[in-house]
Amino acid sequence: MRIYGDTVSGNCMKVKRAADLLSLPYEWVNVDIVKGESKTPEFLAMSAAGQVPVVEWPDGRVLSQSNAIIRYLAEGSSLLPDDAFARAKADEWLFWEQYSHEPYIAVCRFHMLYQGKSENERESWRVARGEVALDHLDRALSDRSWLVGEAFSIADIALHAYTHVADEGGFDLEARPSVLDWIARCNDRFAAG
Amino acid sequence: MRIYGDTVSGNCMKVKRAADLLSLPYEWVNVDIVKGESKTPEFLAMSAAGQVPVVEWPDGRVLSQSNAIIRYLAEGSSLLPDDAFARAKADEWLFWEQYSHEPYIAVCRFHMLYQGKSENERESWRVARGEVALDHLDRALSDRSWLVGEAFSIADIALHAYTHVADEGGFDLEARPSVLDWIARCNDRFAAG
Repeated sequence: MRIYGDTVSGNCMKVKRAADLLSLPYEWVNVDIVKGESKTPEFLAMSAAGQVPVVEWPDGRVLSQSNAIIRYLAEGSSLLPDDAFARAKADEWLFWEQYSHEPYIAVCRFHMLYQGKSENERESWRVARGEVALDHLDRALSDRSWLVGEAFSIADIALHAYTHVADEGGFDLEARPSVLDWIARCNDRFAAG
Repeated sequence: MRIYGDTVSGNCMKVKRAADLLSLPYEWVNVDIVKGESKTPEFLAMSAAGQVPVVEWPDGRVLSQSNAIIRYLAEGSSLLPDDAFARAKADEWLFWEQYSHEPYIAVCRFHMLYQGKSENERESWRVARGEVALDHLDRALSDRSWLVGEAFSIADIALHAYTHVADEGGFDLEARPSVLDWIARCNDRFAAG
């Protein structure tokens, strides 16, 4: 399969990390989003939403949306819980990440890293919601090692993506010790392969 | 099971419609989000994210995030495709809805319906993204009856929720004939039960 993505995008890195952990062979095709390479006619003909990551299989199937992709790749593996309700709790985190975390944490990071804004130039409403998201995550991780049940799963892969670089968006991770410990556990897991 | 929700919220209506179509018995507990009833200590003790809808089962299990809930309720039914890749395509729509549709269409509607803003007082960047979302949906529906494969699914339930009331957010549905036809098909499906 081919993964179309940009290594600076946490959403794309979710797919790379999941594929690596699952030992799935792939070709990485770099798509520079800042240069508009996900909005070219060729790209849109493949995936009309014009977003990365996208996975394309040799038989022509195409799938976008980072969390839909990692959920599909992980099916039948230890990265997706066997139990239906535990899978639903993983989904709960995946949807929360895209609605209540990424639009604040990742977008503030984008403004600072790629648009050269300072911490004080960030949008205050976006910062406030990012702080709420990190606090929620810190509380959730205060009495457990992983987000769902007793095992590392796609929920951890999805939430790790932008959380571990939240400081690049001006957020203070040092104030969230449970998040910091969990990031270290996730990093160990990625390093172990 | 109990569904905690607000009937003015499209996200909550997704869960009600899925439960009704699946003939699942439930108790509806109204939570007035504008009055802050999803942020009370009691509510937060049940569901720490402080969002509706939430489903609570008699054994104490609790699940939030509208799309995670309808995906779980639909498991094993005709509302969720049997084929793994078709399920992934449904997930693709669910995540797209929460990231690229709801924050624009639903939030503009909230500003107009509940904060009394006029069409011209909407945030222009939000309007522009809502227009892009509706155009994408219209193109996707131009050559098919339902969003995934040949059958009505949770993807249709999720996208219908805020699309069919997009005019209340100042968006023009008349300009999207494929969307209008699909809304009519969805409405027939809901009416048939």
